[in-house]
Amino acid sequence: MKWSKSHIYTMKEAPSDAEIISHKLLIRGGFMKKLAPGIFTYGNLGLRAIRKFENIIRDELNKRNCLEVLMPMVHPRELWEETGRWNEMGDGLLKFQNRNKHWFCLGATHEEAITDYVRNDLKSYRDLPKNIYQIQTKYRDEIRPRFGLMRGREFIMKDAYSFDADQAGALKAYDSMYDAYKAIFDRLNLNYRIVQADAGNIGGSQTHEFQLLADAGEDALLVSDTTDFAANVEVCPAIDAEPHVSKETELKPLEKFATPGAKTIADLEKLTGIAAKELVKTLYFSGNEGFDPKDKSLKAFAVLLRGSDEVNPVKVKNMLGMTNPPLMLTDDEVKEVTGASPGSCGPVGLHIPVYMDNGVEGLKNFIVGANEDGFHLKNVNHGRDFNITKIGDLRMAKAGDKDPQSGGRLKSYRGIEVGHVFYLGKKYSQKMGATFLDQQGKVQPFEMGCYGIGVTRTVQAAIEQSHDADGIIWPKSIAPFHVHMCVLDPKDAQIMAKADEFYNQLNAQGIEVLMDDRDERPGVKFKDADLLGMPVRMVLGKRGLDNNEIEVVERKTKEMKKVHPDNLMSELKSLLGVK
Amino acid sequence: MKWSKSHIYTMKEAPSDAEIISHKLLIRGGFMKKLAPGIFTYGNLGLRAIRKFENIIRDELNKRNCLEVLMPMVHPRELWEETGRWNEMGDGLLKFQNRNKHWFCLGATHEEAITDYVRNDLKSYRDLPKNIYQIQTKYRDEIRPRFGLMRGREFIMKDAYSFDADQAGALKAYDSMYDAYKAIFDRLNLNYRIVQADAGNIGGSQTHEFQLLADAGEDALLVSDTTDFAANVEVCPAIDAEPHVSKETELKPLEKFATPGAKTIADLEKLTGIAAKELVKTLYFSGNEGFDPKDKSLKAFAVLLRGSDEVNPVKVKNMLGMTNPPLMLTDDEVKEVTGASPGSCGPVGLHIPVYMDNGVEGLKNFIVGANEDGFHLKNVNHGRDFNITKIGDLRMAKAGDKDPQSGGRLKSYRGIEVGHVFYLGKKYSQKMGATFLDQQGKVQPFEMGCYGIGVTRTVQAAIEQSHDADGIIWPKSIAPFHVHMCVLDPKDAQIMAKADEFYNQLNAQGIEVLMDDRDERPGVKFKDADLLGMPVRMVLGKRGLDNNEIEVVERKTKEMKKVHPDNLMSELKSLLGVK
Repeated sequence: MKWSKSHIYTMKEAPSDAEIISHKLLIRGGFMKKLAPGIFTYGNLGLRAIRKFENIIRDELNKRNCLEVLMPMVHPRELWEETGRWNEMGDGLLKFQNRNKHWFCLGATHEEAITDYVRNDLKSYRDLPKNIYQIQTKYRDEIRPRFGLMRGREFIMKDAYSFDADQAGALKAYDSMYDAYKAIFDRLNLNYRIVQADAGNIGGSQTHEFQLLADAGEDALLVSDTTDFAANVEVCPAIDAEPHVSKETELKPLEKFATPGAKTIADLEKLTGIAAKELVKTLYFSGNEGFDPKDKSLKAFAVLLRGSDEVNPVKVKNMLGMTNPPLMLTDDEVKEVTGASPGSCGPVGLHIPVYMDNGVEGLKNFIVGANEDGFHLKNVNHGRDFNITKIGDLRMAKAGDKDPQSGGRLKSYRGIEVGHVFYLGKKYSQKMGATFLDQQGKVQPFEMGCYGIGVTRTVQAAIEQSHDADGIIWPKSIAPFHVHMCVLDPKDAQIMAKADEFYNQLNAQGIEVLMDDRDERPGVKFKDADLLGMPVRMVLGKRGLDNNEIEVVERKTKEMKKVHPDNLMSELKSLLGVK
Repeated sequence: MKWSKSHIYTMKEAPSDAEIISHKLLIRGGFMKKLAPGIFTYGNLGLRAIRKFENIIRDELNKRNCLEVLMPMVHPRELWEETGRWNEMGDGLLKFQNRNKHWFCLGATHEEAITDYVRNDLKSYRDLPKNIYQIQTKYRDEIRPRFGLMRGREFIMKDAYSFDADQAGALKAYDSMYDAYKAIFDRLNLNYRIVQADAGNIGGSQTHEFQLLADAGEDALLVSDTTDFAANVEVCPAIDAEPHVSKETELKPLEKFATPGAKTIADLEKLTGIAAKELVKTLYFSGNEGFDPKDKSLKAFAVLLRGSDEVNPVKVKNMLGMTNPPLMLTDDEVKEVTGASPGSCGPVGLHIPVYMDNGVEGLKNFIVGANEDGFHLKNVNHGRDFNITKIGDLRMAKAGDKDPQSGGRLKSYRGIEVGHVFYLGKKYSQKMGATFLDQQGKVQPFEMGCYGIGVTRTVQAAIEQSHDADGIIWPKSIAPFHVHMCVLDPKDAQIMAKADEFYNQLNAQGIEVLMDDRDERPGVKFKDADLLGMPVRMVLGKRGLDNNEIEVVERKTKEMKKVHPDNLMSELKSLLGVK
C-alpha cells in the first residue's frame, strides 16, 4: 500500500485517557480510534494485524479438526435463563428489550448459544467428539473500561467449545487445545507463560491461562526459577522458603494487655518489638452467598493470617465453596460481630467460624486483638483459646516462596491474560438438557470444555511487550506490513519509478510493503516508520541509488545495512525469516 | 473436509417458519440455524460461502483503492443526535441504556460512525478522495423478521463510504463503486439488474439498486425489453403505451347524478358503462410531516388518478418533498374533509390541495364523486371545475408501459435488493461539521457517498435464484466446497485409500473437496449431495474403480460422465472453470 492511497494519520501525543504505552501507541499510530469508552474503530493497519492473528488461530485450530461457525451477538433471554446466568452474570451482561418488549442480551460469551446449537444435532456417541469455534465481536459492559483493548467493552474473541462423550475425551480435547494455543502464541514469538489459574467451583475442573508477560499486566504471576511451574497468584500454593515454627514449646497463660493507639500490624510491631511474621491478624468477611443465597443476614467468618501475609480471597472462596470471593466486613459490621474496632479484634471468644492459614499453624503464644478497643491478648494458642473451623493455605504466595514442584524459588511477574483453556465438565450440558446416547444406549449429558483467546487484546498485549521509546516493534507474524519503504525523493520521477519497481517486485514475492511516498522530510518519515513499527525499514533515495546502495534497517535492533539492489530480496527475506 | 470430521446435519423437512425456498434449503442443509426470530448461527458450510463472497467483495474494492476498517456495533447516542437520526430512524434502531445509564444503540448503518472516524483526519483537499469500507454484523430491529437472511434482524453487510472535495469527485467515486458492484455480482454469475431507485429527498441525489431476480423478491421491477433501462417500480416513470386523450372537444355543463351503491371504480364502470381508464378517482392523504412536522393538525390533500391506475406513494412523497410516503386518510377522516364517504368523493368544491396524475390530463367531461353520499358529478373538467395544485407523474408504472428511453415496452420482474449505491452529497458532513480546507483555503463539508451490499442476504438470494427441486445449486464462486466426493464403500480399506489419495491430490491443487465418508447407503449420500449443492459430485465405488471409471456429475445440469482416473483432474477443472 502506498501512503498516498492509505488512511494513515499519526499523532505526536496520545490522548490523556490512554494510560499504558500500548494503548498510546495504538492511538498515535492510528491503528484504532475511540468511538466511546471501551469502544473502538479498528483502522486499516490495525485491522491488518488483527486479521493476521485471526488467521494464525484459524490455521492452528483447523489443523486440529476444529470447525469454524459464527454465532449471533444478540441472544434471547430464554437461552440464558436455562443456565441461570441471565441473573448470575450481573451487570456485565448487557440486557435490553427490543421493540416487541422481548428481552435480549449482547453475547459476552457463548456457552449457552453453542450448546443450543449442537444439542439437537449430536445425538449419539458416534457424533462425538466435536470442537466448534468462532471469531466474533463480543460485548461486556465494563463499568470502567480502560487500557484500550485490554479492558474494553466491545472486543474480538476467538471462543471454542468441545463436546465429548466422557471425561477422558474431554481432557484429550483440552490437551489438544492447550497444544494449539502453544503453537498459536509461539508463532507470535513473544514471551508468555502458561499458568495454573482459578477453576472456580466447577467440580473436577482444570484450567490454564496463557499470559503474555508485561509490567502493565493486570495479573500477578509466580514462576519457578527451576521448573516450568507457573501460576496466577490467585491460585499459587504458598510454601514458605523457611519454616515458620515458634521455638517455644510451653503454652503460656493467656494475658490481656493495653495497646493504646495500635491499630495496624506495623503499630503492634513497633509497640511489642515482635516481627510481623510472628504476629497474627484476624480479618472478617461475610460469606452470605457462599452459604445460602436466600439468607440475606450477615453470616460472618474470620480468617487468621500471620501479620506479614496477605489474604488470598480466591483461596478463601474455594475453601468455603463460594461462587465469588468473599466481601470484607465494614468497620461497623466488624464492631457488630466482635464488639471492637478492626485494629483490636481477634478470634478469642467469638461465635463465628474461624478459618486459619496454615502459616499460623506453627506459631505459639502469639498476640491477637482482645475484641476490646485498645487491648490485645498475648500468649494466645489455637486449639486452646479458640476453635478452628478449618486450616489451609489461605495466603498470597509471593516471590521467594518455594516452587511446589521442586526446591526452586518463585519469581514474580505481571501478565496479560490472552488465552484461557477450561475443562467445564457437565455444568452447561446438564442444565440445558444437552444429551446424547452412549454406547450402552444411555442418555448422557456432554462433557464440555471452553477455550478463549482475546484476539484484539493479544494484538495490544504484543505491543505492550514489544516496543521501544520510538514506537511499536511488531512481531513479524502479525505486522500489518513486512517492509516500510521510505522514498526520500518522491518528486524525482526516476526515483519513484525505481521505488515502484521494488514495490511491485516485493509484493509479487509476498513481501507486503507500505510505501511512504509523501512529500515530507526524511526525519518525519523515519519517525513515522519507527512509530508504526513494521519489522524492516528500507530507504530509497537518490544518493543511495546512485551508489547502488539501499539502506535497510531492522526495526527491532535498529541495525542498519547498506545493501546492493541485487541482494535486496535475499536480505529482506533473511531479516523477515521467510524463504 | 471429511463428513466424519464435519458438523453437517441435514433435515428432510424445513421448519414451518421457513416460507421461501432459499430459507428452507439453508435450514435443511444446516447452513444456518435459528437462535431467535431473525437471528441465526451460520454453520461451518454456510460461513464458508459467506466468507467467499466477502473475499470477492474485498478483492474488487481493494483493487479500487478502498480501505477496509472495522467500526463498532455499539454506538453512543450523542453520535446519532448529531444528524437527528436518533429519533428519525424510529424503532428499527435498537436503543438501550448501559449499566451507567448512558444511551447507546446497535449500529444499523454507519454514516455517523464513519464521518466521526474521518472528520479529524481529513483536513485538506489533498487528503481526498477517500473510500473506506467494512464488512460487519449489523442489527435492525425488524418488527416481523421473515424469509431467513432476507429480512433478518442480525445480518452481515459490507458498507462503504466515500469522501470527496466536490460533486464531480463524488460522482466519480459513485461510478467506481457502480463498476465494482458490477464486477462483484458478475462473479456470482447470477441474473441481476441494476435499477434506478428512490433517492429520497436529498438534493441532487443519485442512486441505483442491484437486484437479483427471483419470484420471491420483495421489490417490483420494470425492465425494458429494448434498452438497458430498469427501475424499481417505486420510481419508474409511467408512460402510457397509447395516449389517453378524450376525443371530445367541447366542455359540457357540470351535472350531478345519483349513483346509489356505487362505492368502487368497478361499481361505477358497471353503472355508467364507461371504462375505468376514462373514470377519475380521488384519493385523500395526510401530509403533516411533509409540510410542517410541528403541526399535528390534519393537513389533507387529494390525489387524482384514472380509475385504472394505482397511486405511487413514493412519487407523491417526492413531488411534495416529504420525508416518508404519505398516509391515506381513514374513512372517518375523509368524511371530515369532504362530507362524504370515500366512494362518493371528488375534488370539486374542496379547499385542500389537489395533485393530479398526468394520466388524467387528457381527459375531458369525466366523472368524479360529488362529495355527497350516493351521488357523482359528470362532465367534470379540471381547471374549470376545480383547481389543480400541481400535475405530474403520480401513478405506478406497469408492464406494457413505454420504456422512457426508447419505443420499447417495460416487462415486470421481482427482485431481491442485494446492493445499493447512493450519492449522499453533504447531508451528513454538514450536520456533523465534517469539513476540509479546499484549494482556496475555504472550509467545505465533504461530498459523500454510501454503498451497501447485503452479504448474508446475497448468499441466500443466490440460492433463491439458483436451486432445483432437489436442493441448492451453488454458484461456483461461493460454493462452500467445489467437489462433493461420495465414497460408496468407505469400509473397504482399498477404496478409502484411493479416496484419500484423490482427496489429497485435489485439495493440493486448490480444489476444495467435501468427502462423504459416512457408512450410509448411496441414495442417502446422493440426496444429501443434491441438497447441499456443491458444483460437482464425484462418486468413488468399488465397481467403478475396478473399471477405471469415476462418475462425475455436474450439479446444475445433472449431466453424468464416466471419467478415467487419469483425466479426473482436467475434467474437474473444466467443469469448475479453473486452470
